[in-house]
Amino acid sequence: RLEETGHVVSSWDMEGSGPARRHYTLTPSGEEHLCEWMAVLERLSFSLARFAADVKSVVTGSVPETAG
Amino acid sequence: RLEETGHVVSSWDMEGSGPARRHYTLTPSGEEHLCEWMAVLERLSFSLARFAADVKSVVTGSVPETAG
Repeated sequence: RLEETGHVVSSWDMEGSGPARRHYTLTPSGEEHLCEWMAVLERLSFSLARFAADVKSVVTGSVPETAG
Repeated sequence: RLEETGHVVSSWDMEGSGPARRHYTLTPSGEEHLCEWMAVLERLSFSLARFAADVKSVVTGSVPETAG
């Protein structure tokens, strides 16, 4: 549960028709946690792109743009 | 089996000590197929990076660099 980690808080929305709905809000620590994961995702995506470019360069026999 | 699609051919390597080893080689159609998948992977990685950047900009409240 994200609430137990303090990343999300919830409240009951009594307005409107129909049953009460639960309303979730990110806390500051939740926003920070999300940003950290997005940074992980970005690094992963860059690694994937570099891997794909490297495989293509090996197959086509061309020289890759960057080493390492 | 990749061999059934014509993307890979195999042969037996009888050299060296120990049992014969199977040797696999990409065919031209296999190389083309691999390059197509690497292009898919690159597009996916760019989508992931853009998604991560968009989430971060929403959380931090800053303006994203590019729209669309």
